[in-house]
Amino acid sequence: MSEVAEATGFAGLWSSLLAIGRDADSGGYRRFAWNAADLACREWFAAQAAERGLAVETDRNGNQWARWEPDAPSTVKHGTANTATNGGSGALAIGSHLDSVPDGGAFDGPLGVISSLAAVDLLRSRGWRPARPVLIANFADEEGARFGVACAGSRLLSGLLDADKARGLCDTDGIRLAAAMERAGQDPDALGPDPTRLRDIAAFVELHIEQGRALADRDAPVGVASAIWPHGRWRFDFTGEANHAGTTALDERRDPMLTYAHTVLSARKKARLGGALATFGRLRVEPNGTNAIPSRVQAWLDARAPDEAALDAVIREVHAAAVERAGRDGTAVALENESLTPVVEFDHALRDRVSKALALEFGAVPVLPTGAGHDAGILAAAVPTAMLFVRNPSGRSHTPAEHAETADCHAGVLALADVVADLAGGESGS
Amino acid sequence: MSEVAEATGFAGLWSSLLAIGRDADSGGYRRFAWNAADLACREWFAAQAAERGLAVETDRNGNQWARWEPDAPSTVKHGTANTATNGGSGALAIGSHLDSVPDGGAFDGPLGVISSLAAVDLLRSRGWRPARPVLIANFADEEGARFGVACAGSRLLSGLLDADKARGLCDTDGIRLAAAMERAGQDPDALGPDPTRLRDIAAFVELHIEQGRALADRDAPVGVASAIWPHGRWRFDFTGEANHAGTTALDERRDPMLTYAHTVLSARKKARLGGALATFGRLRVEPNGTNAIPSRVQAWLDARAPDEAALDAVIREVHAAAVERAGRDGTAVALENESLTPVVEFDHALRDRVSKALALEFGAVPVLPTGAGHDAGILAAAVPTAMLFVRNPSGRSHTPAEHAETADCHAGVLALADVVADLAGGESGS
Repeated sequence: MSEVAEATGFAGLWSSLLAIGRDADSGGYRRFAWNAADLACREWFAAQAAERGLAVETDRNGNQWARWEPDAPSTVKHGTANTATNGGSGALAIGSHLDSVPDGGAFDGPLGVISSLAAVDLLRSRGWRPARPVLIANFADEEGARFGVACAGSRLLSGLLDADKARGLCDTDGIRLAAAMERAGQDPDALGPDPTRLRDIAAFVELHIEQGRALADRDAPVGVASAIWPHGRWRFDFTGEANHAGTTALDERRDPMLTYAHTVLSARKKARLGGALATFGRLRVEPNGTNAIPSRVQAWLDARAPDEAALDAVIREVHAAAVERAGRDGTAVALENESLTPVVEFDHALRDRVSKALALEFGAVPVLPTGAGHDAGILAAAVPTAMLFVRNPSGRSHTPAEHAETADCHAGVLALADVVADLAGGESGS
Repeated sequence: MSEVAEATGFAGLWSSLLAIGRDADSGGYRRFAWNAADLACREWFAAQAAERGLAVETDRNGNQWARWEPDAPSTVKHGTANTATNGGSGALAIGSHLDSVPDGGAFDGPLGVISSLAAVDLLRSRGWRPARPVLIANFADEEGARFGVACAGSRLLSGLLDADKARGLCDTDGIRLAAAMERAGQDPDALGPDPTRLRDIAAFVELHIEQGRALADRDAPVGVASAIWPHGRWRFDFTGEANHAGTTALDERRDPMLTYAHTVLSARKKARLGGALATFGRLRVEPNGTNAIPSRVQAWLDARAPDEAALDAVIREVHAAAVERAGRDGTAVALENESLTPVVEFDHALRDRVSKALALEFGAVPVLPTGAGHDAGILAAAVPTAMLFVRNPSGRSHTPAEHAETADCHAGVLALADVVADLAGGESGS
């Protein structure tokens, strides 16, 4: 893979971004939409694009786009599926995002942006020129860490998030998204769907570090996404009766913490049996006093499964287990679905074409589903979309310990370059 | 019981205190040490004492004392146990506290203070006069709701809480106890043990609403305390590995929430088998995100048992269950004891004498242990101490739903008057 090290700015791109928004104590990143670290990332992106002679534009929803124009009118003979008929320029978009979860790692998002810039370097070093525009995206607010809505930039772009609702989103300091954008010099009144921009994109390919160990288990540096599992968030409200922990006999208690604890263990069992994922990671206890039996435990269940029927079944079974235990504890349980994202099946034709483009360099690459949401999952509703994954040896994600080996990152650049050469090249690969 | 209604100010005392510090939404009380509601309670106490011609003094630790002096030098023939030899006036102290837990009920504390004032009214209406001083206490900061240390006033008085440590205690707004006292016109430099004051007290009897249903089960309006169970707080630190809830395979997880949930259910089982009480009511989860496997769950266990061996056994067994489960979850568990209060056995001679004094009016009264801490438990180390309990039909405590019937409150006043007449009267009851 030394071609990437020699012919691209990968190492410099990586090291110049590394310090921005990193917390000295945790070693994790705090790049949240429109905060100082995020603005520094955006400046970094514009500067790196400018260094490469790529024009940079910020769209009405705050997403940044660097554009590599073909030298001459397109010489495409057979375009990517759906390209010819949509009236756009038939651009290929690549890229990802630069923001992070609280104390996130260095790879989730930035690896896709850096690899896109490096892929341009690599293709240029080979003397390759695009036949159609290549866009590199830095999507705004993918993680939703500050304002609570993940993929806000791509959702606004494609009309899946209402502009008024977005403007009114508040961070924990009570600052509205509209105010935060305005301070950053971005006009919040411009927010909203952008069909013209979408029509210009013939395909979108997002490279991302894998967030599990499937590639590590298969001993493969890169893979291709098949689908994003359906996933959602459910709020369980367990209610009982506040009482004195020191004086209330066990039989007199209505302690919702017991019902919650039983539900946590049930969720793990039902998820295992259903081939799903279920996690209780967020909790609110009232009154949350050491010597008080709680009156209420609110707990959020994150659940994901290969298909919607399996997801439904897990939620139904966990709820039934909670209700049964509540009957024994003298407590009550209420369930509310707070969000539900249906399965995203990535475009089959594009996926097969990407796999084929990689075959020469990598042989047959693994095709993997993922449980995580991505901008690619949002755009998939409007544009043929694919994802490339880069091996994550520990599988850890959303933590400073997230990691990919440099050789695998270089493999990712090579893979992305192969895909760009195929999809934006002068000759169709099909 | 109509004698209490006719001859005492009980109803007026009750209604005049009722509105102070009550939250309009929850219906519960927020009388926290040295806040506005607490200061209003202290003014109320001073005014009620003054109305009865009782001198009021605030001691160096902020405890208020109303004093009913005998008319003439003591005519006691046989004093209360330990009285003659301690060099004091041989006073009998009664009373309780007026502060509350967050959203506490109207009875916990105030019932003891109001009943003490009403018992004075009742005895005077009968023409009875004390042969030794009768002191009515309003102890400062019994609940520890604001600064975290329960029974701070009685602990400081008896030297069980260091004055420097107390001055440095902080509330959640960062206000130190010393500053809060100073703003209330109380000198924080004066805090510290007060052996002279303690020596003046020959016995202390605290009346309190029962915090369980033992009297209700026995169909008795009043009871006498035998002991306060040994009790303590233990902090469990469950640590695992933060990871993405949507992408981390179940087998790859080190999720401390599972270990916590198992420990909650184990604590309930072990407490039941050991005849003890165990409660997980307070929790801190990191990072507490819906889509994040927690890196850490901190949980506080409140445990109480009839004796110290039983308490030790429950903690040992719960810890062992947690460690065993942690081994299966790939997590770690650390245990720290944050506080431990040994068993308090109330003075047997005084308890028998109180029971005997009640026999004429009430027959044989139940003798009960309690799991709750009280100022009486603190003073018991220095002074012969007893407690009277008033029936609580629901057993609920530390909640706005806490309640005692008026007839039972009147029975409490009658019982307290009987005890005062016996212990502070001109003739020994023994």
